[in-house]
Amino acid sequence: MPYRAPVTDFQFLLDHIVGFQTVTETSKFADATPDVVGAIVNEAARLSEEVLSPLRRNGDEQGAVLENGIVRTSPGYADGYRAMAEGGWIGISASPDYGGMGLPHTVGTVVNDMMSSACLSLHLNPLMSQGQIDALSHHASDEIRALYLPKLVSGDWCGTMNLTEPQAGSDVGALRTRAEPNDDGTYAVTGQKVFISWADNDFTANVCHLVLARLPDGGPGTKGISLFMVPKFIPDGDGNPGKANTLRVASLEKKMGQHGSPTAVMEFDHATGWLVGDPHAGMKAMFTMMNNARLGVGVQGLGQAEGAYQQALAYAMERQQGKTAGGEETIIGHADVRRMLATMKADIFAARTIVLACAVAIDMAEATGQDAWRARAEFLTPIAKAFGTDVGCEVAHLGVQVHGGMGYIEETGAAQFSRDVCVTTIYEGTNGIQAMDLVARKLADGGEAAYRILDEVETIAEAARTDFPDIAAKVWTSAESLRETTEWLVQQSNLNNRFAGAVPFLRAFARVIGGAAHLKSAVVEGPGSGRARMARFYITRLLPEHVSLLAQVQQGGEDLMAISPEDLSV
Amino acid sequence: MPYRAPVTDFQFLLDHIVGFQTVTETSKFADATPDVVGAIVNEAARLSEEVLSPLRRNGDEQGAVLENGIVRTSPGYADGYRAMAEGGWIGISASPDYGGMGLPHTVGTVVNDMMSSACLSLHLNPLMSQGQIDALSHHASDEIRALYLPKLVSGDWCGTMNLTEPQAGSDVGALRTRAEPNDDGTYAVTGQKVFISWADNDFTANVCHLVLARLPDGGPGTKGISLFMVPKFIPDGDGNPGKANTLRVASLEKKMGQHGSPTAVMEFDHATGWLVGDPHAGMKAMFTMMNNARLGVGVQGLGQAEGAYQQALAYAMERQQGKTAGGEETIIGHADVRRMLATMKADIFAARTIVLACAVAIDMAEATGQDAWRARAEFLTPIAKAFGTDVGCEVAHLGVQVHGGMGYIEETGAAQFSRDVCVTTIYEGTNGIQAMDLVARKLADGGEAAYRILDEVETIAEAARTDFPDIAAKVWTSAESLRETTEWLVQQSNLNNRFAGAVPFLRAFARVIGGAAHLKSAVVEGPGSGRARMARFYITRLLPEHVSLLAQVQQGGEDLMAISPEDLSV
Repeated sequence: MPYRAPVTDFQFLLDHIVGFQTVTETSKFADATPDVVGAIVNEAARLSEEVLSPLRRNGDEQGAVLENGIVRTSPGYADGYRAMAEGGWIGISASPDYGGMGLPHTVGTVVNDMMSSACLSLHLNPLMSQGQIDALSHHASDEIRALYLPKLVSGDWCGTMNLTEPQAGSDVGALRTRAEPNDDGTYAVTGQKVFISWADNDFTANVCHLVLARLPDGGPGTKGISLFMVPKFIPDGDGNPGKANTLRVASLEKKMGQHGSPTAVMEFDHATGWLVGDPHAGMKAMFTMMNNARLGVGVQGLGQAEGAYQQALAYAMERQQGKTAGGEETIIGHADVRRMLATMKADIFAARTIVLACAVAIDMAEATGQDAWRARAEFLTPIAKAFGTDVGCEVAHLGVQVHGGMGYIEETGAAQFSRDVCVTTIYEGTNGIQAMDLVARKLADGGEAAYRILDEVETIAEAARTDFPDIAAKVWTSAESLRETTEWLVQQSNLNNRFAGAVPFLRAFARVIGGAAHLKSAVVEGPGSGRARMARFYITRLLPEHVSLLAQVQQGGEDLMAISPEDLSV
Repeated sequence: MPYRAPVTDFQFLLDHIVGFQTVTETSKFADATPDVVGAIVNEAARLSEEVLSPLRRNGDEQGAVLENGIVRTSPGYADGYRAMAEGGWIGISASPDYGGMGLPHTVGTVVNDMMSSACLSLHLNPLMSQGQIDALSHHASDEIRALYLPKLVSGDWCGTMNLTEPQAGSDVGALRTRAEPNDDGTYAVTGQKVFISWADNDFTANVCHLVLARLPDGGPGTKGISLFMVPKFIPDGDGNPGKANTLRVASLEKKMGQHGSPTAVMEFDHATGWLVGDPHAGMKAMFTMMNNARLGVGVQGLGQAEGAYQQALAYAMERQQGKTAGGEETIIGHADVRRMLATMKADIFAARTIVLACAVAIDMAEATGQDAWRARAEFLTPIAKAFGTDVGCEVAHLGVQVHGGMGYIEETGAAQFSRDVCVTTIYEGTNGIQAMDLVARKLADGGEAAYRILDEVETIAEAARTDFPDIAAKVWTSAESLRETTEWLVQQSNLNNRFAGAVPFLRAFARVIGGAAHLKSAVVEGPGSGRARMARFYITRLLPEHVSLLAQVQQGGEDLMAISPEDLSV
């Protein structure tokens, strides 16, 4: 079923919910006028609907393959990639100095949302390049930036992230890949990397691998890790791809989904690399790339949710089956089908608010340099990643359910959403890691960033009391409960008391922000509006989950860790 | 990773939690002595571990195919089937009159649990036959019983259910397949059926299709439907497979999972059939088969959960990654991994209690003929089906998460659980349909069956107050909340007020029964035991979900149905 970009929702969120106007009022983003943004969104919508969406099933049915060491991509993917590159979409948020559009990350996030819906496995390629562009812009030398950025921005070349090794996944510090200095200022990089997304393709002239490796004098753990640019083809004097580097795709993984995205085992054998950033400071640069990518992955989850929802809605409005209590003709008249669809849509709205609010904070941090914006962006990033992708999985699962038996048949396309989105909860840091990041590092400020968001939620609730007294009260109360639990968490010095409730805490935070977003949208459109009906649904039916989530958090970790491996094994 | 049958858990549940002793005290099941049951469970465990479990990946990697009209099954499936047949497992609960073991359904449920864990897609075949044996035993003529039952019980032949048509899924009454009387007392059955599980194979001498069709004088809807036995090969005078019937497998579906189970489009072209039961009474007979199958499908979900859990636990106890707060060597030391594993195990225990309690009630209804047992069985069936399969999906999803990136790679086998189990929430009536059945038909007694279960929960809570005052109080309170909500539901004459909260109500009921089961197990093993630790985990962390679920139920349907298709489409 063809994808339709939810342009109205984007516009509503930008205009009324996430404060995008603040971004456009900065001098850095003054060019992002409503006209420009509107035109950009519409053009990306057209590309997503007409060019990318038709490729989605191709990628699943005829996935990428490795033939004699060469990666062959799915039918149509080369054309789809070229269309994204030629439209300038890869460099949408990159600096105009290197050919980018220089638009806010918020606009880039809207575009990524659409393109992820339309063809997740292909769009993962430019998403990786965007992360690399960001990392190079912040950390690379002038020479490397001048050489690589224009090619990455134009899409002539693409970028990858090489972090994971068999023994070093979530624990990046355990990596063994080594880099030895050559005589000419370059380095010889040797090691094996696994789970490398889009490690190669048959449509870009070069592939630029950012590789984490340890210098001879690099100590153990993350502090001894450096970052290297290791291109597939070594650029010649003119900056064109020259001789082949000593690296290769050893194999591709057979995955549950995203068959269109080649996931490789990479082998580097004294491959020539260039240091990016300072020696032993690789993790810092990689975190720039990862934070960008984490928001991007949250958007992938959300995009898949949107695609799955649209397909389920279309099916429910067409499929006739059984008498409904109200005499409707199709299954959308069944209360339980309506409940599933409303859940999907309400959660998509909540998740979209969170990712866009995160993007706005990133833009404001860049435009103003203010710590408060940076702290807000950092606080929202793990929530955007984990909640966006959890919603992706849940909505895709509900989408299959709405289809009934047809949902299990691959040709319907509903199951593909479920299989494709599943990995988004895992890559760029599992959602468990995101939650641990939230309750440990992101609460290290004593809860300041969290309380600021809760203050906003309560302000929204206060403003809504006149028109929506009952649901405004529920949102206000939820924020207060969350504040108390946050205060409790901040006091826990035994980290397991935080980690045991990390995942429920993150979800509760998302639930409460989602409640405020829905309430605000009800106020904007007023009583009797469709958004007011959706807000009531979310606040009375989905928001209450925060109660049981916070109950879990408050249990701490003692009784959990008392459950021994033996208890679990019997 | 090889499956290990959780024999200790089965024995504990039978002996202490679900009242299996009551079954063995009836004259009907007097032969099911502890020795017999113990031997049966151990032998089924051995078969599941050694013979069936090694076939699981085969079925996924080399699924069933249709070649020139003939279904070729996965490597090893024929041997696996033969082992189940020769062990007498297909007829474990069938009458000894036809070669069955005549053991309680409770024992059959334990066996199905293990075999579903070990190889879901193959075990679906005997599960269908068991449903057919049940339906024929209750509704078929003496002739049909004498001819078919011994062959089905021995496994020489197998059985299928042919209900669904493209326009008639959940709404069986919309079916169009017709049956016209022949001169010799048989019928000519013509029509197309879809989603037929194990419609054919290459290892049984015959395939017995039970087909729903409409007689010429059958009115519209479910009341005009009759049931027919339509065998692949028409039995000759000696009861051996004779000439081929005019039916065929038109195609096999490409599914998200269960590749080892051929799912067919079936075409019947004036195929010879025999009426089973009275004319126009087909739905009654089919419901016998479906109720049996619904419990069986709940067990499938549970079995998959067990398999996924075991694999995740093994991985977590072996995989080293990152420092844990307590200094453990492997990822089981991470609080969030521990939380996921404990959730999986605690929910499996709750679901297993519910399916076994349902099976005990079925046995007691058969053994005593008492209405109260029948009502209890009927009340528990949709809960067993929906909660068992929801837990299957959730645990399989968590299993992938515990594996991290490895979970997304097919060779690991974790993803297969997730793909295979997904359809169990859909077939034999979607979980939405189960929930609607619960709040409408199963509450038509004014809530009597529900209140009786809640009385038991409160009795368990009272008995636990001495040793476990805090968690006993939580269980008691949850039962009271659920009772209030049940009373509210029973009063709703507008069915949408019931249907809007059907799914949350069913889950809340499962949560509360699970709480009682955990609490009882804590009492049995006493304070300080592993089961007491698991009970505390479930009751303080998972049971609280009932609060938000019941809040949803109490919202009724008005605000949900006020959300228009237009609201959902914008």
